[in-house]
Amino acid sequence: MALPSTTKALALREGGYAPAPTAAVPDRMADHIELADMPLPALKPGQVLIEVIMAPVNPSDLFYVQGSYGQPRTQGNAAGFEGVGRVLASGGGKMADALIGARVAFLGTVTGTWAAHAVSDAALCIPLRDDLRDEDGAALIVNPLTAVALLERVREAGSEAFILNAAGSQLGRLILGLARDQGQKALAVIRRGHDAEELLSAGATEVLVSSDSDFATRAGTAIRSHKPRVLLDAVGDQITADLFFAMPSGARWVSYGKMSDESPRLGQMGQFIFMDKHIEGFWLSRWLPAASPERRSALIADVQARFASGAWATRVASRLSLPEAIDGMLPALEQGTGKVMLVP
Amino acid sequence: MALPSTTKALALREGGYAPAPTAAVPDRMADHIELADMPLPALKPGQVLIEVIMAPVNPSDLFYVQGSYGQPRTQGNAAGFEGVGRVLASGGGKMADALIGARVAFLGTVTGTWAAHAVSDAALCIPLRDDLRDEDGAALIVNPLTAVALLERVREAGSEAFILNAAGSQLGRLILGLARDQGQKALAVIRRGHDAEELLSAGATEVLVSSDSDFATRAGTAIRSHKPRVLLDAVGDQITADLFFAMPSGARWVSYGKMSDESPRLGQMGQFIFMDKHIEGFWLSRWLPAASPERRSALIADVQARFASGAWATRVASRLSLPEAIDGMLPALEQGTGKVMLVP
Repeated sequence: MALPSTTKALALREGGYAPAPTAAVPDRMADHIELADMPLPALKPGQVLIEVIMAPVNPSDLFYVQGSYGQPRTQGNAAGFEGVGRVLASGGGKMADALIGARVAFLGTVTGTWAAHAVSDAALCIPLRDDLRDEDGAALIVNPLTAVALLERVREAGSEAFILNAAGSQLGRLILGLARDQGQKALAVIRRGHDAEELLSAGATEVLVSSDSDFATRAGTAIRSHKPRVLLDAVGDQITADLFFAMPSGARWVSYGKMSDESPRLGQMGQFIFMDKHIEGFWLSRWLPAASPERRSALIADVQARFASGAWATRVASRLSLPEAIDGMLPALEQGTGKVMLVP
Repeated sequence: MALPSTTKALALREGGYAPAPTAAVPDRMADHIELADMPLPALKPGQVLIEVIMAPVNPSDLFYVQGSYGQPRTQGNAAGFEGVGRVLASGGGKMADALIGARVAFLGTVTGTWAAHAVSDAALCIPLRDDLRDEDGAALIVNPLTAVALLERVREAGSEAFILNAAGSQLGRLILGLARDQGQKALAVIRRGHDAEELLSAGATEVLVSSDSDFATRAGTAIRSHKPRVLLDAVGDQITADLFFAMPSGARWVSYGKMSDESPRLGQMGQFIFMDKHIEGFWLSRWLPAASPERRSALIADVQARFASGAWATRVASRLSLPEAIDGMLPALEQGTGKVMLVP
């Protein structure tokens, strides 16, 4: 079989970082990506060529295409952090050769996943069980491992209970389900109330709706009753800061996302001193390399088992082809609860 | 010798905590303390009665009398966290008995130090070398041990360099001298430039003046050149937050005081995620019990040696009697560079 030397891709129009912090969601995707015939680099040992089946749009992708994610853009390269596909060829090496023909979840470590083909490091490809849906394979790495790692932080903090904002997101739902199964109590914060029932059945211990007029009172009561010591934060607004300052001694604010454009104020600095509070961050790209290969394999096996059993499921809001995606992605993201999937 | 059953004291007029966060410095001391004949509690085993020689006014005392420090006030008790005095009597127990007649630095653990007599736990009394001045004994614990512990944090962070604001304070000068002797580099931040030369000779590697028009540029250059990983902060204003966000990956903002009334904004939340930054606090009252008795003894011996040799010296701005202190303390604090000492 002849291997392709170019591929259709949603390629980055700009390189490097944005000159200033950007919003969580760009105004127009067309400012940042374009449909292009992207040359595929020659495979090096340890690399594989993958025919992409499906790739999700994650919040981190939207920061990345704008140049405000933690790694610089390479102009002309495809965007997209993760996906599912079939391995067509290997650049050599035992691990890469063994993957030929396999369906894998993978990270776009060499070229991005928003493309018909991608080149990736074999070490970061995960061969999938046959009973796993493509949708679950496409979103197997970023969100599930983030959920596992964040709940590990909660355990490390010696706390049974935690606060989770943006709890209605895809990642939020994964965290809620896993937390319940591990005996951890989630106080789920959402903006509007229509998802409350659903999040309770997804695993939340309590649901707090931040647009309710009595939100502060209800949050205070829930905090006094459950004593959460960790705040898992994907929003970073003033409501988040206020929750943090309402938490008990030793509380840790763990920022892993920034969906709000607000700059929260620290109104009670003294709590860092007298109440031993902390603010810190979580980034999967730092956590993954720090975990041992054995640990990663064990976690990945757990993650696949959870999806295969139906304990976790990736909800799909819509599927878009690459040409449709440039103009269709942002409207699709606004509509749906669930992932927008690119299907080359 | 008959022991006194009451003593002259600057007693707290209120109990518990303030209903809301307060300023660093009260408007009127007379709202919070009054000259009173305070009954001295009967000595329990392990406690000693001390005739107070001298007691300093620390920033933490000013927060405490207003009810905005990390422990609640006891109405009618004397204020004052530390002092120097002579032990008059013991409530029994080997350690307490051994202190009778000794000149000690002590913490006001039972009654406060702003009084003619105080009751304290013998375990927190430090017998003083004869060659140590009363001034140095009076301020031997809070500032010196804070300096030692904060520079330990700098070392733990794997950083040679650090930023220190409020660097002209008594504690700031202790930190600068110790840092130089330990081979650590201090970027000293002060509000106005007239102390710059003095702080360089006190041990600062660079002095940055926050009221200078080119402060941000100069700070940026110093940060790029020295790569400080720790920010020792006694101010907590927006300038502090801006310095933090200008620091390199892995930077830790360690808050140990709050002299500004500002609520700083976190303008770059993403740095917690991508740059592994942290905000945390330091409180001597948490650090002291966590250190082993052997460790504390060794540190205290070091601290006394530094004062006795003149490597450290407590600068005294003014001395006030207890009756003078109620109205005289705040004007004296405003004037001087150095400690205001109460001399009962």
